[in-house]
Order: sequence, then structure tokens, then C-alpha cells
Amino acid sequence: MALIHLNTTPIKRGIKCCVPEITRAAYISGFAGTATVIAEKLYGIPIFGTMAHSYIEAYGSEEEAFVAFGRANPNNVTFLIDTYDTLKGARAAVNAARRLSKEGVQTSAVRLDSGDFLALSKEVRSILDQNGLPEIRILVSGNVDEIMIRKLLADGAPIDAFGVGTKLDTSEDAPYMECAYKLMEYDGKPRLKKSSGKATLPGRKQVLRRLQDGIMVGDLVAEEGDMQEGAPLIAKVMDQGRRLSPPSNPAKIAAYTKSQLQSLPEYLRKLSSTPSYPVEIAPSLIRLREEAEQSIGCIKKK
Amino acid sequence: MALIHLNTTPIKRGIKCCVPEITRAAYISGFAGTATVIAEKLYGIPIFGTMAHSYIEAYGSEEEAFVAFGRANPNNVTFLIDTYDTLKGARAAVNAARRLSKEGVQTSAVRLDSGDFLALSKEVRSILDQNGLPEIRILVSGNVDEIMIRKLLADGAPIDAFGVGTKLDTSEDAPYMECAYKLMEYDGKPRLKKSSGKATLPGRKQVLRRLQDGIMVGDLVAEEGDMQEGAPLIAKVMDQGRRLSPPSNPAKIAAYTKSQLQSLPEYLRKLSSTPSYPVEIAPSLIRLREEAEQSIGCIKKK
Repeated sequence: MALIHLNTTPIKRGIKCCVPEITRAAYISGFAGTATVIAEKLYGIPIFGTMAHSYIEAYGSEEEAFVAFGRANPNNVTFLIDTYDTLKGARAAVNAARRLSKEGVQTSAVRLDSGDFLALSKEVRSILDQNGLPEIRILVSGNVDEIMIRKLLADGAPIDAFGVGTKLDTSEDAPYMECAYKLMEYDGKPRLKKSSGKATLPGRKQVLRRLQDGIMVGDLVAEEGDMQEGAPLIAKVMDQGRRLSPPSNPAKIAAYTKSQLQSLPEYLRKLSSTPSYPVEIAPSLIRLREEAEQSIGCIKKK
Repeated sequence: MALIHLNTTPIKRGIKCCVPEITRAAYISGFAGTATVIAEKLYGIPIFGTMAHSYIEAYGSEEEAFVAFGRANPNNVTFLIDTYDTLKGARAAVNAARRLSKEGVQTSAVRLDSGDFLALSKEVRSILDQNGLPEIRILVSGNVDEIMIRKLLADGAPIDAFGVGTKLDTSEDAPYMECAYKLMEYDGKPRLKKSSGKATLPGRKQVLRRLQDGIMVGDLVAEEGDMQEGAPLIAKVMDQGRRLSPPSNPAKIAAYTKSQLQSLPEYLRKLSSTPSYPVEIAPSLIRLREEAEQSIGCIKKK
């Protein structure tokens, strides 16, 4: 099963997002390719093109629209079959694929963008197979997210690829991430905030990751220079406003992401809620916090 | 009660939003001003500045930090009082306000950014009043949204203004809006899509809004040129790539928005779920759909 990033026009409180950047992020996270043409030019991400409903609507006949598309794009032939009636569209795709085949053009896939994907994918698979076209794959798009994909595959839907757009670039269950810069050191002295529910730890830090047989088992947050066991995660990447190593490319970053995902423990790879990953605070930081609290007079000196 | 748009650093799936555009949208929607300094320069939006926790942390004493801030910004003095302990911060603010007052600098407000806002705002109000400073207002920020504001005001919290950031530019309950361009006419003929759950109406359209005593009572979607009762909402704004009227400014747009909000029926102004606003389809469009369906052979000609 492959994932394709679709063009989207997300409008979020008046902000139009930059689609090639989302495509790049999708590719890095494991998507096979994209329908966003500019992302190939900018980042070398493979294109899996398909047609728009408007293209089908502009023709009087679906079959003629499919044949014209195949002649114009002989290396990338996917038919959108749900504009009027998906099963009629599948039969039009069979006719178009046969006509194109005689001209030496191979049809890769059909795309379903609406309706009951489980029932329709089975019926469309059956129409394609009965007509001797088992090599034509089925691509599904339209409000697809990870929950829908899991359910369709678990139910045995014969779907070869999913196109994901809107629900990739906006999360429904966690639409924003809070983040803030906080002062930890000033004039060589550790600083901290004690605000209720928003207290911070003072000082310069390092995060040390412990692995067992290549699988992450826990992180330790320690004061910088505190020589604890584990692989340090914080490294200097810029100096004097200059990067210290050359930029990587999306394919390399995607391979690195895959290896990192493989080091996640099984319980963190589930879609459902999972136990928290263990993160501990080193005694060095606890001591530093006590020192900082004393220096701002929050607790009495012993 | 006033609303202030706060600086935020929202990170949404790797996309950093352009803060002054969000500020402009907030101001148009009714916010009194912003803490985003660039928005004053770009759009003339009033600034309500306040300090960062890092500023307080950098000083050894809250009172000294407040006094230094007031001397540097004598026209815009709001103290952030929750860095260590909000009630101690309120007493430091009282001392700082008295010292600044002798220098001719008036303190406008204190800001609470954490903790139990209902209890703390009452205690802080009491400290300020008991010290003869009833003119100092209370501003609250920190994960504020419309639900929290309604609850705090209903519970009688003496809060004069709310600063809203993250939950203004990303909606938790409706994080994205689907939108798509669809082909409605091609080569002078009406076109439509019949996809399950995604069918479209063909042809060029006008939307006619009906008002009673200045309050909206319903919209009618009709074919363009179908002379129905109501105020037309669709108007030509560009021709040959040029706008047909000069751009407006945010203050004028905000006034227009306010007048439009006042024309909403009472049931659409509630935070809780409400009945749908009535939108009807004109017989002209229903007829056009039948014609378009016949032309693509979806239904038999009678």
C-alpha cells in the first residue's frame, strides 16, 4: 500500500499554506509521491498525476476524456472514475484502457474520490479483473486519514494506494502545538519561571537517549556537561549564522526518518492512545533548579 | 471587555504562519489591538504591549523589572505578574506603580498568564483596590478561548481584557475548511458532478439575501439573471486582472464586519450549536440541473 500526497487548497483562518512544503514533509514522513507538480521541480519528489473532475465534466463522454488523457500523458495514466457513477466510470475506464493499449499506452490505475470505498473498491476490482485488467491498480482519495485507511485495509478493501490531502496538513485531533522560547540562563546565571503549570527548568541542557537492541527505552534531560549514559540528541548545527554541514535532500531525510521510526518501541507506533515514553530529569538539573530558586528568593536559604 | 491579539509562534505541521496577517484578521473581527508590533507598522493596528517572562527573569527583582519597564515605555505600562507567584507579583506591581506615579508615569494594567484566573483575578483586584489603585486594569492571557472567556465573565471574574493567541489562529473544534473549485459551465453549456455526497449544481449563480428589519432571514441560490427578491451577494470585483475599487483599510473593514455581525439573527450569535440558517435553491437552478443531467445522459430524456 502506498501513500500519495494530493494537492489541497487548505484555508486556515485566512492563511493559505504553501503546498510544496507540505509535500516535502509528507515525502520525508514516508509518502511515495505527490500530485503537486511543483514539488518535483523543487524537491525531486515523484509525481503521481491524476485528473480533475472539471476535466471529465468538460468532455461529453468519460471514455473519450480518459482516452484523450492517456494520449496526452502516456507515462502516467490514472483515470478518475467517480464523476457521475463509479461503476459506469469503471466500465468506461476498461474501454479506454483497451483502446489505449492498442496504441501502446498502459493504464496504471483508476481513482475513486467519493462513495462507499469498501463496497466500490471491491466492485471496481471485480470489473477490472473480469475484463482481464488485473494490473490496473485502485487509488482512493477524498477525506482520507489514518483511521479510515486502517479500517478499509482491515476490512479487506482491495485498495493499492491512498491519496491524502487536507487531513495530512491539518490534524483534526491535535490542530496546534504550543511552543515557546524561555530564558534559562542570563549573565552566566541559571534562570527559571515558576508560573503555575508553566514552570521551567533552568540552565543549559542535553538530552540523552537510551536504546536497547536498537529500540528506544527512555530519555534523560541533564545539565549540559553532565556525563550520563546515552546518545546526546542536542548538537550544534549553526555557528556565526552559518550551517556547519551541507543541507541533505528529501530522499536521504526520508531514509533517516524511516530508520528513526524503526527505533520507536512498538507501543508508540499505535494509532490509539499509548503509555507515555519515559523521560527523566537528571539530579544535576534538580540541584540547579534549587540554586536558581534560592537566588530569586523563592525559597529560604538553608 | 476588550480583546487583544497576542504574538504567537504557531507551528502547524511544519508551517509557520505569518503573524501580522492573523493580527489583521483579528482586528477586522473586532479585536481592540495587538501585541504584534509589526502589525501597527503594516496595518495601523493599535499596540497593547506587555513584557515577556524572560524580561522578568533577567532581573533579580520583579519590582525593579517593572519600574525599569515603566521608565522605558511610559505610555504603555502593563506588568506581567505571574513569573514566580501572582499575588507577590501583584504587590510588586503596587510598589512599582507608586514609584512610577511619582515620576509621572501611569500604570495601565497587570497581566496574569497562568493559574486559576477566576480566583487570582479577584485577589489581584482586591490588592490593587486596597492600595488605592482601582484604575489599574486586569488583563488575562494563556490558552484563552471563547469558551473560557464566557465562563470567567459569567462567574464574575473582574477581568478587563483578554489576550488571545494560539486558539485564535487555530480552531480546536473546526481546524480546517474544505473548499474546492468545480466546473459549472464549459463552452457555454452547464456542467455538473454527480459524485456520491459531492454532487454540484451547474451554471452561473447569484446568491440573494433576504432581510427583515435589518436581520438576515434566509438566502436563495439562483441562476445568474434570475430576478428574485433579495440583495445580491456576488459582485464583480476584478476585471482584466485589475481591481474595480480601491482597497479599504482594516479599520473600515472592521466597522463593516461589525455591521454585518449585527445583521445576524440572534440564534446564529450563540457559541453553542444552533439551527441551520435557511438556504434555498431556486427553481431556475433545479431546471438547469435537469437539463445538464440529460445532456450527459445521466437520466433518459422524457
